[in-house]
Amino acid sequence: MSELNPSNTALFTVNNIWMLVSTILVFIMHLGFASLEVGLTRAKNTVNILFKNVSIISIGIITYTLCGFNLMYPGDFIFGNFFGFGGWGISQPDGAAGLIDYQNGSYTYFTDFIFQAMFAATAATIVSGAVAERIKLSGFLLFSLIYVAFIYPIAGSWKWGGGWLDQMGFYDFAGSTLVHSVGGWAALSGAYILGPRIGKYSKKGIIPIMGHSMPLASIGVFLLWFGWYGFNGGSVLSADPGPVSFVFVTTTLAAASGVLGAMTLSWSFSKKPDLSMVLNGSLAGLVGITAGADVISPLNAIIVGYIAGLLVVSSVLFFDRLRIDDPVGAISVHLTCGIWGTLAVGIFSSEHSFLTQFIGVLSYGLFCFITSFLLFTMVDKLLGLRVSEEEELIGLDLGEHDMEAYSGFQIFNVE
Amino acid sequence: MSELNPSNTALFTVNNIWMLVSTILVFIMHLGFASLEVGLTRAKNTVNILFKNVSIISIGIITYTLCGFNLMYPGDFIFGNFFGFGGWGISQPDGAAGLIDYQNGSYTYFTDFIFQAMFAATAATIVSGAVAERIKLSGFLLFSLIYVAFIYPIAGSWKWGGGWLDQMGFYDFAGSTLVHSVGGWAALSGAYILGPRIGKYSKKGIIPIMGHSMPLASIGVFLLWFGWYGFNGGSVLSADPGPVSFVFVTTTLAAASGVLGAMTLSWSFSKKPDLSMVLNGSLAGLVGITAGADVISPLNAIIVGYIAGLLVVSSVLFFDRLRIDDPVGAISVHLTCGIWGTLAVGIFSSEHSFLTQFIGVLSYGLFCFITSFLLFTMVDKLLGLRVSEEEELIGLDLGEHDMEAYSGFQIFNVE
Amino acid sequence: MSELNPSNTALFTVNNIWMLVSTILVFIMHLGFASLEVGLTRAKNTVNILFKNVSIISIGIITYTLCGFNLMYPGDFIFGNFFGFGGWGISQPDGAAGLIDYQNGSYTYFTDFIFQAMFAATAATIVSGAVAERIKLSGFLLFSLIYVAFIYPIAGSWKWGGGWLDQMGFYDFAGSTLVHSVGGWAALSGAYILGPRIGKYSKKGIIPIMGHSMPLASIGVFLLWFGWYGFNGGSVLSADPGPVSFVFVTTTLAAASGVLGAMTLSWSFSKKPDLSMVLNGSLAGLVGITAGADVISPLNAIIVGYIAGLLVVSSVLFFDRLRIDDPVGAISVHLTCGIWGTLAVGIFSSEHSFLTQFIGVLSYGLFCFITSFLLFTMVDKLLGLRVSEEEELIGLDLGEHDMEAYSGFQIFNVE
Repeated sequence: MSELNPSNTALFTVNNIWMLVSTILVFIMHLGFASLEVGLTRAKNTVNILFKNVSIISIGIITYTLCGFNLMYPGDFIFGNFFGFGGWGISQPDGAAGLIDYQNGSYTYFTDFIFQAMFAATAATIVSGAVAERIKLSGFLLFSLIYVAFIYPIAGSWKWGGGWLDQMGFYDFAGSTLVHSVGGWAALSGAYILGPRIGKYSKKGIIPIMGHSMPLASIGVFLLWFGWYGFNGGSVLSADPGPVSFVFVTTTLAAASGVLGAMTLSWSFSKKPDLSMVLNGSLAGLVGITAGADVISPLNAIIVGYIAGLLVVSSVLFFDRLRIDDPVGAISVHLTCGIWGTLAVGIFSSEHSFLTQFIGVLSYGLFCFITSFLLFTMVDKLLGLRVSEEEELIGLDLGEHDMEAYSGFQIFNVE
Repeated sequence: MSELNPSNTALFTVNNIWMLVSTILVFIMHLGFASLEVGLTRAKNTVNILFKNVSIISIGIITYTLCGFNLMYPGDFIFGNFFGFGGWGISQPDGAAGLIDYQNGSYTYFTDFIFQAMFAATAATIVSGAVAERIKLSGFLLFSLIYVAFIYPIAGSWKWGGGWLDQMGFYDFAGSTLVHSVGGWAALSGAYILGPRIGKYSKKGIIPIMGHSMPLASIGVFLLWFGWYGFNGGSVLSADPGPVSFVFVTTTLAAASGVLGAMTLSWSFSKKPDLSMVLNGSLAGLVGITAGADVISPLNAIIVGYIAGLLVVSSVLFFDRLRIDDPVGAISVHLTCGIWGTLAVGIFSSEHSFLTQFIGVLSYGLFCFITSFLLFTMVDKLLGLRVSEEEELIGLDLGEHDMEAYSGFQIFNVE
Repeated sequence: MSELNPSNTALFTVNNIWMLVSTILVFIMHLGFASLEVGLTRAKNTVNILFKNVSIISIGIITYTLCGFNLMYPGDFIFGNFFGFGGWGISQPDGAAGLIDYQNGSYTYFTDFIFQAMFAATAATIVSGAVAERIKLSGFLLFSLIYVAFIYPIAGSWKWGGGWLDQMGFYDFAGSTLVHSVGGWAALSGAYILGPRIGKYSKKGIIPIMGHSMPLASIGVFLLWFGWYGFNGGSVLSADPGPVSFVFVTTTLAAASGVLGAMTLSWSFSKKPDLSMVLNGSLAGLVGITAGADVISPLNAIIVGYIAGLLVVSSVLFFDRLRIDDPVGAISVHLTCGIWGTLAVGIFSSEHSFLTQFIGVLSYGLFCFITSFLLFTMVDKLLGLRVSEEEELIGLDLGEHDMEAYSGFQIFNVE
């Protein structure tokens, strides 16, 4: 870039490097998701969950390379701003060494691609938690492949690709809807179709099935919170000091007050301070602020996070009443609080319309719930979706992988 | 910032983004503290410790927003450079879009706030380790709330807020005293008031109570070391290449030689290579270099770290002799080595006076020990400070939370 | 740096800060290695492995400070571009505040040193995995000290220090050979000299010895992948947007396709999806792309990674056939795929000669295998290399450290 003047070069370089740092922060969220899901489920399904998580990110990245990126950012749309496709594979455009928007100090084509690629697999990972401990590995991998390769990027193109919702003024800064709800709707349809784990709901009521490692669950939450600074902070799409520092503040405050919201409600309700609720509270706050992290004031971010903390606790109880079994609370965290966060933009930011936000939520809901429902049904016919009762009881680690996660440890088989 | 010339903009942007990266490195230290404390204590108190750690950071951030930041950086002092208050809440000052010191290439108001906010909760987290396995949850949370909201920032204002010790020439680069000793003194008073865990000291002498997960303890130490690059590196308050790279070198060398110091002393003393001593050795080195990371030469950093490694081993034995029970060695790491590091500035840097450093150490010691002692005593009257004997024996996880950390695992109840 | 014009200052600052961020990403790889090695071995050797890993990085950093850095980057060579030494210790050169290559926007002397120092200990850490569960602590530490202080930097000087292989046109971008194979050859000679663990190979054939914590193994792999963005991304030696973002893309794609390569081969071979193979697959892809991450196209990176994934599975089976017992697969990941990656540069990059790459591989192989073989033999005479049969059976944690990793847990002693 020697032909450019050095001051623009420096600004471009710092913007670009912040996007790359954000990329790896989003990457480490996948370890966060894996740890959280493992920690909140039983020891006998650990290998299976880890296998799913390592596979999903790999499949997600490769499919996003092959077609996802160009479905999400198609350039021109084909069918009325609902669908477009920029061609197979990735290849750096000509001119200015493949740099995008050099004049305004932005980032390279490859930075753009890799930052987006890290987001892609997140949606499938969210689903993973809700269908854990009973879904067939092959069925889940096939579902994820198709959902991440096609549904996620097409849905994403409606807003981030410049499609119809973007043109209508719908706002979703970093993906309360485009990432979290898109994953959350599929989590809901998956959990519904699969049905609950054996023994979860009996005539005597709801039987809690405890996770086997609270340290792993907590490591997961801290890593997710950590990575969220790249998820939200990187969504500024530059290192511009004002907005990035603003987003850091709102993100932090929402996470912290999400903890307090979940703590006060669950503590007053159950008389015991419940760790898993508090952990989900921080994630609830984070999902809640994601849509409006750059437009909601710090004080309001505290309110948005606190309400998200209240909502996640209520939502967990609500879905348990409906007998929709979600082992890690993924639906409550990502769908319920994803909706809340998207609507909160319409409430707390004067620049955005509540009605448009609501239309966006509804549109994504219809599209994602229906497509994921059909997809799960199709996979069920093709490969089968649920493991046998016998396999569920001995655990998927022995059933699917012929391997134990904790060789040598004395572990009771909790059914 | 389009009205500014691009070269200053670029420099400001990189300085600001480094402060934000440092912020999240300090954030992940909280996971480090949590993992370390969990790993070095018994399985039956794991949920409790995790709950405390997730709560502390959330309470710390919210209270720092409401009043802590403006107590620590009050602008004008009210009582002779001992106390000041800049008002409730945070709000970006007018002018230059809330940027601070734009001409010299620094960072925004919100960056300033969020970097400091991440530090705030650290002090309370340090206390957590020393009082673990026997303190009541509600009592601990109340103590932490008040200590972090008022004592920590007021003490901090004396130096970093431009108060009386700053004007006297006292030096503490990144907080050997202002963070680590401030936490350490409260850890000491808390451990003293609570008394030892049941069974730790008997007529037969000291009965070691082993931690239940050395991998978690090690993960904690590696994450703390990792995050310390933001703690010390961010305390340069810019990305200025000379000082930041210098601080990286001294920090690394002190941590590494802290390991070697603790290894040689404990190995020669006990004839067995002791993992927990070696782990604390690296933290000892890190705490030791924190006060002077920018003014102590690399060679001297090796010496400072090595001595800190020797000190932490000796200090652990010393406090055990005094029958002050500190499950994780927090007092030895943060108080003993915090004092050492602060005095080391007076020894190894010709620009700073040993006497002034000593006065600083003494002043913080008096203020923090007395206030934390009174505060613990007050909380004891109000809510009770120690769990019942019965609860301590079955563990705080079942007693306080009605929950197990490792559901399904066969675990012996170690008293 | 006020005398310099601000635009160059900004560019220098961002380049330098990216190198420092890369440094800490490489640092956290040591936690990755530790977690992976612990997870894939038995619970009874956990304390020992953690102790080794904390010690190695500390010893590595201190010896690199004392002599390693100046052996690897000697300035002038003494014996015909094979060996040089720049003097003991580190000291910032005069002029321009110890900045290197300021005009082109690079980084400081201390940044250069600390980035390289973090690499140094990696080679010994690789060895650690292959000799785990049976090597004496003292013997291993002595071996590591000498290997990291002398062999690694001398070998490194041949290419990165500007030595004979560099002048011949050998290419190794970030260390498929210089780091991974250098560690891998020593891992091979160590595993060979020590012989297999008791019970691994019997008349009935190969008896798999399962690792005790798949979550720890997975945490290790995710952290290694995470840190690799600093390992490869930092090897650009600046934050130059084009090459750094390119390297991020190739690194990510190779890791992801390594997972898919290992998955397809192991699944079709054993009929069960094998988690440990998939985990090693991602590392295989990462090692494979390391030599050519900046010169191999994204599409070819997918191919390189996929082949690495196939190779690692085959290699694990191959070495098991030879009865060379490598508990974590370190030889297959780092040596086999390190060779593959180095040769791949000669295949996929038209600018580099396959023959020269082959000569490089061979030269490093001869030098490192012979020196490590002699060194292990010497240490064996001096201190003994293998623990007693009795100690191996009860585990090195009790044998060497008189300590358990999981106090309170009921664990079967798996021999």
